[in-house]
Amino acid sequence: MTKDLPSIPAEPRSAKHWIIGDPLPSEKLEGQLLPKHLALPIFASDPLSSVAYAPQELLMILMIGGLAFLSFAPWVALAVVVLLVTVVASYRQLIKAYPSGGGDYEVASRNLGEKSGLVVASALLVDYVMTVVVSVASGVDNIISAIPELNPFRVELAVVFVIILAAVNLRGVSESSKAFAIPTYLFISSVALMIVVGLARTLLGDAPVAESAGYAVQAEQLTQAAVILLLLRSFASGCSALTGVEAISNGVPAFRAPKIKNAQRTLVLMGGIAIALFAGLTTLALITQVHYAESACNLIGFVDCETKPQRSLMAQVAAATFGNNTILFFIIQAATALVLLLAANTAFNGFPLLGSVLAKDGYAPKSLSTRGDRLIYSNGVLLLALAAIVILAVFQANLTVLIQLYIIGVFVSFTLGQTGMVVHWLRALKQPKPDRGAIWRGLTINALGAVMTAVVLLVVTITKFTHGAWLVFLMMPVLFLLMLGVNRYYRDVAREIEVDPTTMFGSQGDHAIVLVGNMQKPVLKALDYAIAARHESLEAVHVSIDDEQTRQLKKDWVRMNIQVPLRVISSPYRDISHPLIQYVKSRREEHGSEVTTIYMPQYIVGHWWEGLLHNHKARRVRQKLMLVHGVTIALVPWLLDSSELIYGRRSRPVPGQDRRGEPVRPVRPVQRKPIAPASGTTTRNRPPRNKR
Amino acid sequence: MTKDLPSIPAEPRSAKHWIIGDPLPSEKLEGQLLPKHLALPIFASDPLSSVAYAPQELLMILMIGGLAFLSFAPWVALAVVVLLVTVVASYRQLIKAYPSGGGDYEVASRNLGEKSGLVVASALLVDYVMTVVVSVASGVDNIISAIPELNPFRVELAVVFVIILAAVNLRGVSESSKAFAIPTYLFISSVALMIVVGLARTLLGDAPVAESAGYAVQAEQLTQAAVILLLLRSFASGCSALTGVEAISNGVPAFRAPKIKNAQRTLVLMGGIAIALFAGLTTLALITQVHYAESACNLIGFVDCETKPQRSLMAQVAAATFGNNTILFFIIQAATALVLLLAANTAFNGFPLLGSVLAKDGYAPKSLSTRGDRLIYSNGVLLLALAAIVILAVFQANLTVLIQLYIIGVFVSFTLGQTGMVVHWLRALKQPKPDRGAIWRGLTINALGAVMTAVVLLVVTITKFTHGAWLVFLMMPVLFLLMLGVNRYYRDVAREIEVDPTTMFGSQGDHAIVLVGNMQKPVLKALDYAIAARHESLEAVHVSIDDEQTRQLKKDWVRMNIQVPLRVISSPYRDISHPLIQYVKSRREEHGSEVTTIYMPQYIVGHWWEGLLHNHKARRVRQKLMLVHGVTIALVPWLLDSSELIYGRRSRPVPGQDRRGEPVRPVRPVQRKPIAPASGTTTRNRPPRNKR
Repeated sequence: MTKDLPSIPAEPRSAKHWIIGDPLPSEKLEGQLLPKHLALPIFASDPLSSVAYAPQELLMILMIGGLAFLSFAPWVALAVVVLLVTVVASYRQLIKAYPSGGGDYEVASRNLGEKSGLVVASALLVDYVMTVVVSVASGVDNIISAIPELNPFRVELAVVFVIILAAVNLRGVSESSKAFAIPTYLFISSVALMIVVGLARTLLGDAPVAESAGYAVQAEQLTQAAVILLLLRSFASGCSALTGVEAISNGVPAFRAPKIKNAQRTLVLMGGIAIALFAGLTTLALITQVHYAESACNLIGFVDCETKPQRSLMAQVAAATFGNNTILFFIIQAATALVLLLAANTAFNGFPLLGSVLAKDGYAPKSLSTRGDRLIYSNGVLLLALAAIVILAVFQANLTVLIQLYIIGVFVSFTLGQTGMVVHWLRALKQPKPDRGAIWRGLTINALGAVMTAVVLLVVTITKFTHGAWLVFLMMPVLFLLMLGVNRYYRDVAREIEVDPTTMFGSQGDHAIVLVGNMQKPVLKALDYAIAARHESLEAVHVSIDDEQTRQLKKDWVRMNIQVPLRVISSPYRDISHPLIQYVKSRREEHGSEVTTIYMPQYIVGHWWEGLLHNHKARRVRQKLMLVHGVTIALVPWLLDSSELIYGRRSRPVPGQDRRGEPVRPVRPVQRKPIAPASGTTTRNRPPRNKR
Repeated sequence: MTKDLPSIPAEPRSAKHWIIGDPLPSEKLEGQLLPKHLALPIFASDPLSSVAYAPQELLMILMIGGLAFLSFAPWVALAVVVLLVTVVASYRQLIKAYPSGGGDYEVASRNLGEKSGLVVASALLVDYVMTVVVSVASGVDNIISAIPELNPFRVELAVVFVIILAAVNLRGVSESSKAFAIPTYLFISSVALMIVVGLARTLLGDAPVAESAGYAVQAEQLTQAAVILLLLRSFASGCSALTGVEAISNGVPAFRAPKIKNAQRTLVLMGGIAIALFAGLTTLALITQVHYAESACNLIGFVDCETKPQRSLMAQVAAATFGNNTILFFIIQAATALVLLLAANTAFNGFPLLGSVLAKDGYAPKSLSTRGDRLIYSNGVLLLALAAIVILAVFQANLTVLIQLYIIGVFVSFTLGQTGMVVHWLRALKQPKPDRGAIWRGLTINALGAVMTAVVLLVVTITKFTHGAWLVFLMMPVLFLLMLGVNRYYRDVAREIEVDPTTMFGSQGDHAIVLVGNMQKPVLKALDYAIAARHESLEAVHVSIDDEQTRQLKKDWVRMNIQVPLRVISSPYRDISHPLIQYVKSRREEHGSEVTTIYMPQYIVGHWWEGLLHNHKARRVRQKLMLVHGVTIALVPWLLDSSELIYGRRSRPVPGQDRRGEPVRPVRPVQRKPIAPASGTTTRNRPPRNKR
């Protein structure tokens, strides 16, 4: 009955494999490393996709003051670009200084302390939820801009997309597949094409004109302070273009060698593309005179403002440049929507990575520290999706409000990360033989970045607190306390199970019980193994819940001439656990503190749904038995035929695995408590028999 | 380190205990048996609560033909009462003939065949979903009738209530608590009071008048066939008063002795009360001239028919009898809403019972056959709640449409159950010495019931198919195929693990491995137990994923002078499973087919959330190890301090447990395949050492 490991079946190469990727051999260890051309789509979809909404929000806030304020737009956009450049430069340094993938969290923990690190972690977790929310809301916005009849179903569409994303990630899909790369490159090229064509037309004298160019806006009378505040708010909204830049700092281990250089180059390339698209799109929006207001009814001349939606800035520019409802128009809308969905997907892939970093430090369940446990991971996906759905429902998928919430989380981690880097450079100055030039350069960049991001954070918090920002300031402390709680719990448990000089064991006696139900092969195997282990005493125990079944068992026992004595315990209530527990306890009272090993079969199955049909009663019995002193449960596996599926099964991708890569250098040592000095006495009091 | 079982702490008797019940000792076996006064609320809430909507639906359908048709109402109501009496009488017989609690499913399976039984089971499962849906929708209807401002939130309210019910049942609450009994008795008494007062006022000449008495209805011109169809539809809608009568037949084992008589008495009492309330309410509705139309806009004279809701029949009668917005009015509305929620709750308690019956026959996961596995049960609660929410959302909590769907499921099981009883009596005729009188009496009752319920089923199906009944005819086959699939699966597995003469085992060699991570107490315990078991050879294995950790372990090993040899296996990828598996396999290649027992600590914890923080990595390693030939896993429990909570912990009620009771007579034998005759040779080839 030998089951040798069959060779991995070779599947013919098909279109499916070209798109989704080769099946991973089931013994594959850490994820494959990423070449730059696949790394770019994975890490760039978030920052690039924010180009879809950042210019829109920037212009929209300016227009609150009236059409004249649009003249400030170039300056505000320039400020955003400057900040983008600063942030990219900052992360370029962070990658070099901390290439192990800890990102902002690691920088803050190491330089500002445990609590600051946790604040960053909380902010990042909130950030992930908001990434899903904003990206899906914007994607739906673009879809509705292409098909306005869908407008009444805005929220429902958004919820459906979140559900689809969750389902896909529960199944597991590899980010490095071409299915992810194509939309990103399509988006980049089509938007770039649009910008080029638009500018070309302008130069040739046939400047495109947006459909909303004709609408005016009620200008507000603003005090000087209000004007400055408006400019700052517009700047803050434009800064949503920065979201997602930090993702690469978490994924450095995933790059091919030389990791640091490749990561830096990808970061710079990504930043460059984002800047180009952002600047180009904003310019084109100003040229085509897109007038996008906070609410459609603010536009003078907009009919049906209650029901008809404003088209997104991207849609308006595309319609103006390429013509309304042309092929290229729909391509742009589709690419935009797709890349936004991909950006939402990055949240599902990013948080396991964050989770593993937190787990290594003891702030998250330990099972996340390696490949990630599918159970905990699935719970995480569901939580993330649920939070996103609730927020979308509560805020009715209103992009403007949601972006404000988004910015807060992102800029908290930006600010703390930059500040941490400043402290890092200050410490570097104290090292022997510091490279003063490089240090001061780095210090300046990071300090500038820290100040600018702190200003943005302050502005958004003040202006949007009552509009929903309080939600973020509620979620973050909750997560903070949760992580702190997990850490303190693990510390308490470690202290509890720490070995001390008084630890004494000394079981005597060795009794084995084989739990027998029907006479079936798994039971025979368990008997076989129990016999092979040569316990001091061995018996088979059958709890009788069905007279007919017991009679049959006794007959079979005799017929098969099994030499192990069979003990039948009666149970009137179809309950196996309690009579068994009573029996074990009474034995212990007789025989003293012996070790009782209870052999039970465990079915190994191939399909997930078979898990609902096997092993549950056994597990219930087992959980109760383990509360009894001196009991050990020995699981004897029985592989059902379907378990052959597990061999050579294509390993389901665990999300985030493409970003894990391999460690860049030896993993940081786990902090342990010093072990109390032993008294030197032997705690082992019986040598094992090592003959064979 | 002995942990003796502490005595159950005695809690002072408080109001909480008076309402919710005494804490069940953790060693309590099957649920306590029910006295009649507690059984009535549990089983009666469903049929009694349907009094809240049945008269309303009956009158509403009649009014489609115009106000004149209300003169048919007494006759239609009489027909419903006759059917009620017939059905009660039928179930009274069923209880006597099949007291083991299988109900309609058992009757159909035994008399009409496996497939008919499954059809009944599918219908009952759909019935449970619809019980939740209709009860919640009606409860919300009554709440809105008391507080009309809530009308725009009808669907949301319904969904919230379903979520609350699901949460309560996930936590587990005992049905036999007084918290359940009070609303039912309150409902019965207050509605009875209302009927008495209403009739008294009528006799005294001050007949109450409903608020809708003044509205007329557009009379339709109907052909004679249409008139008959209308009457039949009205009858069918009125038959929704029958739903829930069958629940007692599933709960006979839960009654105190003499079970059959007590169950019959409770059934008759319940039927009597239901008939009285139904007849009384219908009479009062006709006296007060309640005009309830299918839609508010059908009522001539009803202002604001788009937004203002019609008040339920119950509310209108109460308002007319007691006065609008009086204390008694609100009491009736509250009691009605509460008893409807209790009725919805019965679905959550009924399906585990059905599940256990199905599991015993192999149509549902085996773990349901005893107390019910919390995992599978929780999945069931969630599925039930989800299905209910989806249906409520899709049909916008429209009571009329939903009731049609409800009736179909209920009447499928009624019809098949009655038909099964007819076959039962026909078979009884063929028995030696049949009691012809009793048999013919029973046959007549059940045959009449079968015909009447079949007619209702036909009418509803034909008239409502396009209005949503197709949904029921979709859900039932799906469930049917699922159950059939489970049954065939278990049969295949049984055949797979059947012992045959060629079954040979014969492991040789007995090697034990203790998996060691850090030097902590659980590991020491595992070592201790492994040593106590006296395996032929024993070694400790450490997979090195952290150099520092490995160094520390080696130092501790030496310092503590542990006599078991420590083998260190390196692993560059923080992966424990694969190096271990490679090692075990290479040993087997060297030493032949030996049994390798791998000892691993398993944490036992007190809180549910601790389960997310422990044991996951170990379980992943374990699952992979069990695929390797010759491996047995020995789990060595380590009880963390928090596990003390499990001792003496109040046993969380598993829903449905109050209805399980104890078996009435020996359980029906599990059908087994005949075992192939053995060749008589010994398959055990090594006697165990039984010395001590």
